[in-house]
Amino acid sequence: MKAHATDTLNGVLALAIAFVVTAAHGQDALPSWNDGTAKTAILEFVAKTTTEGSADFVPPAHRIATFDNDGTLWAEQPMYFQLLFALDRVKALAPEHPEWTDKEPFAALLKGDVKGALAGGERSMVEIIMATHAGMTTDEFEKIVKEWVSTARHPKTRKLYTEMVYQPMLELTAYLRANGFKTFIVSGGGIEFMRPWTERVYGIPPEQVVGSSIKTKFELQGGKPVLVRLPEVNFIDDKTGKPVGINEHIGRRPIAAFGNSDGDRQMLEYTAGGSGTRFCLLVHHDDAEREFAYGAESKIGTFSDSLMSEAKDEGWVVVSMKNDWKSVFPSK
Amino acid sequence: MKAHATDTLNGVLALAIAFVVTAAHGQDALPSWNDGTAKTAILEFVAKTTTEGSADFVPPAHRIATFDNDGTLWAEQPMYFQLLFALDRVKALAPEHPEWTDKEPFAALLKGDVKGALAGGERSMVEIIMATHAGMTTDEFEKIVKEWVSTARHPKTRKLYTEMVYQPMLELTAYLRANGFKTFIVSGGGIEFMRPWTERVYGIPPEQVVGSSIKTKFELQGGKPVLVRLPEVNFIDDKTGKPVGINEHIGRRPIAAFGNSDGDRQMLEYTAGGSGTRFCLLVHHDDAEREFAYGAESKIGTFSDSLMSEAKDEGWVVVSMKNDWKSVFPSK
Repeated sequence: MKAHATDTLNGVLALAIAFVVTAAHGQDALPSWNDGTAKTAILEFVAKTTTEGSADFVPPAHRIATFDNDGTLWAEQPMYFQLLFALDRVKALAPEHPEWTDKEPFAALLKGDVKGALAGGERSMVEIIMATHAGMTTDEFEKIVKEWVSTARHPKTRKLYTEMVYQPMLELTAYLRANGFKTFIVSGGGIEFMRPWTERVYGIPPEQVVGSSIKTKFELQGGKPVLVRLPEVNFIDDKTGKPVGINEHIGRRPIAAFGNSDGDRQMLEYTAGGSGTRFCLLVHHDDAEREFAYGAESKIGTFSDSLMSEAKDEGWVVVSMKNDWKSVFPSK
Repeated sequence: MKAHATDTLNGVLALAIAFVVTAAHGQDALPSWNDGTAKTAILEFVAKTTTEGSADFVPPAHRIATFDNDGTLWAEQPMYFQLLFALDRVKALAPEHPEWTDKEPFAALLKGDVKGALAGGERSMVEIIMATHAGMTTDEFEKIVKEWVSTARHPKTRKLYTEMVYQPMLELTAYLRANGFKTFIVSGGGIEFMRPWTERVYGIPPEQVVGSSIKTKFELQGGKPVLVRLPEVNFIDDKTGKPVGINEHIGRRPIAAFGNSDGDRQMLEYTAGGSGTRFCLLVHHDDAEREFAYGAESKIGTFSDSLMSEAKDEGWVVVSMKNDWKSVFPSK
């Protein structure tokens, strides 16, 4: 399960291959990554798993790589973007719900008191999610999400949310695909909140997105077959749910997994627990200047000390955003 | 939703393309299909959805085709093969379960009285499935299934079950893939009962298999991260469940769907209900000599009169196994 630093032959092979690949393409496949242990570890892993004859060769069908979304592929501060979407939806739907003016958590929200609205914890959150994510067809919800991601702007950066994706991770997913990997998202976020834009933004199609979901129901509306979104939780794709979601949707153990928080721990353990070469990576948000700096103390995207210890013990790569990334967001 | 027989331009285009494709490859892509309306409809659909500039052109990412398994890709008589697997497992596990000798439905089964064991209906079935499909890790279950499909033989033909797949359908799935389609299985059968062999037999990888499932739980067994199969239903992928499963796993509406029974009706309706060109096909088992003949009266794979009427009204292709297929099973 651990990286074998002493596997010199493979190391040399990997570096040679990495050099050849770079030379052949005439350019660096990961231009936004600074040279260093993280970048080298990625190049070595890809070289040895894709070189026929290598002891670590993995046939293309088994080159499954899973990526967390919030905090791994795009930002997640000051709070999960899907929650910001839900808050915007509460405002948009308020005229149809006069009862919300004196019903919590909606009343507080509509007065602009987000903190007060979320004081009720998970129960308030679920109420807000169900009120804004259910009660329409899947086609209608897709349209709502598409419109939101093309217009709404982040409270701090004023960027579109899809502009707050990480350039180094875009390069990494593309690099893996170019080397025969199939890239999947495995996120605690809503599966249908991600699918409308993941193909355009990440190059990851809907059928390769795994996430949390609410139940749906097939029915004929005026003779037209549709799926209606119900206010009932179907699956929570977080923590121990991630390996379960991976098994349900993908049906094989990934050979590489990428995350950034305690919610990804079991996905990385499950990935590392398979036989043969495995690769696990965690993004550490230590860059207050270019993005955000948070970790063990943060409620959103907690990166606990115990996860950091486990990463070190297991030989997982921990990426320092500040040191390992040349740039964070894509330049327009 | 209906085929436009009057769309002459597209028809001519399709036939021209079909001719060119055949000529270019120097061979028929569907050699086990007799010339006739079914084969022509398939060739026309593929030609017009894959020809750039055609009014019906569909970009590759949207070329999603879903196939039922039991009765559509492989046989399902005298009963679903997964049920035969479960019966074999009851026998194999009996030594570990002395209590089964006087506990139904197991007692009857162990005396060889299948009919008596299943007399309890769905409740008996669920008990048998849970006793044989749960209580082990996903890796262990995969191993059990792999061994069974490579050794167990069909009671009538004495073939391996994976030799009772339909040659014309193998050609059809390969033909669609060669034309940029992504092929999925959407079956009422168990997702983890199919995945161990669908890639080898059908060319359909685990991540493109949708099916019924039981719940699983992540845990560490002696430090090793595994998923344990629990005796609890997670999802039934049949009838109205098929569009739900398609949405959950694929996240887009298919443009082509293939089935053979009432269990596939909603999948075909959901597929046909999208905008643009759609293709729906039902296999009709009318070939007692080479396979089995059954339909409205059969408990397994019911093809009701109302489904037949709907197929005619909607312009869905109904394949007569007897007339449309040159051969049924692959020759070794």
